[in-house]
Amino acid sequence: MNIVVIGIGLIGGSFAKDIKKLNPRSEIIGIDKSESHLDEALALGIIDAKGDYGSLASADMVFVSIPVNALMQELPKILDTAGDETVVVDAGSTKSLICQVVANHPKRRNYMACHPIAGTEFSGPSAAIEGLYDGKTNIICEVEKTAFKLQERALAVFQEIGMRIRYMNPEAHDKHIAYVSHLSHISSFMLGKTVIEKEKNERDIFDMAGSGFESTVRLAKSSPDMWTPIFEQNKDNVVETLEEYIQNLITFKKLIEDNDFERVHQEMSNTNKIKQILKGIPLTKK
Amino acid sequence: MNIVVIGIGLIGGSFAKDIKKLNPRSEIIGIDKSESHLDEALALGIIDAKGDYGSLASADMVFVSIPVNALMQELPKILDTAGDETVVVDAGSTKSLICQVVANHPKRRNYMACHPIAGTEFSGPSAAIEGLYDGKTNIICEVEKTAFKLQERALAVFQEIGMRIRYMNPEAHDKHIAYVSHLSHISSFMLGKTVIEKEKNERDIFDMAGSGFESTVRLAKSSPDMWTPIFEQNKDNVVETLEEYIQNLITFKKLIEDNDFERVHQEMSNTNKIKQILKGIPLTKK
Repeated sequence: MNIVVIGIGLIGGSFAKDIKKLNPRSEIIGIDKSESHLDEALALGIIDAKGDYGSLASADMVFVSIPVNALMQELPKILDTAGDETVVVDAGSTKSLICQVVANHPKRRNYMACHPIAGTEFSGPSAAIEGLYDGKTNIICEVEKTAFKLQERALAVFQEIGMRIRYMNPEAHDKHIAYVSHLSHISSFMLGKTVIEKEKNERDIFDMAGSGFESTVRLAKSSPDMWTPIFEQNKDNVVETLEEYIQNLITFKKLIEDNDFERVHQEMSNTNKIKQILKGIPLTKK
Repeated sequence: MNIVVIGIGLIGGSFAKDIKKLNPRSEIIGIDKSESHLDEALALGIIDAKGDYGSLASADMVFVSIPVNALMQELPKILDTAGDETVVVDAGSTKSLICQVVANHPKRRNYMACHPIAGTEFSGPSAAIEGLYDGKTNIICEVEKTAFKLQERALAVFQEIGMRIRYMNPEAHDKHIAYVSHLSHISSFMLGKTVIEKEKNERDIFDMAGSGFESTVRLAKSSPDMWTPIFEQNKDNVVETLEEYIQNLITFKKLIEDNDFERVHQEMSNTNKIKQILKGIPLTKK
């Protein structure tokens, strides 16, 4: 298989690593706006060669893993130059606007809208890891708009790297992903901000921080270049989840202020059921 | 050494395991209001025998790891029955009220106020793990009020199990721990609540949740019995941290609503420095 990965960071690099491991004879061409990322990916053996959009015509599969604002600009151009038999998949964390921007593209049938739910808080080619996608969920939107033969090819690859497939429409994807992903990132960033602001003159205080703080604030290490356009594209859903989250925090604070610790206990007990829910979430092996 | 552990769950059980590993000839007596916890701890070999407060007079060290509301009631009684040469240490996550309740106790010099910053989101004797304290910080408050010989004995034990010691007054402890621990727990519980409420009729949605969500919501599995009294005892500090956190969330939401994505990016970039800060936090090996 001849595969082109556009955006050779954590997501694209991990995809390339899995492909190479499963099919050592695949040729993987990398495209990235950062020349140093490309050099790094070459040196790490993640890609076999550097390419450009001229490489797309003969590709069996193009995997596009770039920030969602760049995706909006590049995806139509990528489809313009893709071959008639090329399947183009993306890894964008939003789906509605992405699907809209190519809705009337003459090569819409060459595109499969995907969101592989996988990642870590790190970025760049050196963050790429083998097996990142194993056991993880890949949300596919508007599958009926992709040519059947091309669906099959992409699905076979996703199956090979161990992904579970779920089908969803772009609006439902964006609504639910705001809760289970975008909100977590904002809660973590704002937790980090609150603590850094308060403790900026007291460096020793972080000696007091344990693994619980580390876990809760982990996502605040994430890339602003990646996350700003996600919040922009999913603005309405993100604002709605934030409103509900803020309201829950205000209510909880009020219970503490009112010394209603019976209800404080009850709120936490009710939320403990997250234990059962989390059992179903596959973790990244590091 | 003759050691009594009062409250034989994750914290007390892990302490007992380390003591036993380092000093196989130590006798460890367990006290717990739950008979089934005691039976479990005996069966797991975490303790050598069950005891009661009559066991305290001849103990070299008493480790008290019970919820902080129980600690307020029990600590004076524990000191009443402790021997003249017994050092009593606690593991409470709040320190001001605990120190106040024994401030004028005739055996105040037998008590050393401690907060070992270690734990997981699990509880009970079966959650106890070896090496939990290795490389972690133990905050000691009002050390000057503990008899010098007894300080030495307790510090030797903490050193043996690998803890770093930091000295702090109880008020400073409670203020800072609200930021780096108590707030993380509330942000996580309310994140869990927001998502569960929204998605209660859509079980499949949790297929969309990745390891980022899992990490951010991990603390929402914590025990309400342990955390309710912590929030109660540290009410003023917790309310203050919550107010700042809520304000930061409101500001961030406003930036998104106003389409000021340059500042959204900047807020996240500024918070990325948490990477450097987190490098200093020792993680629990599981």
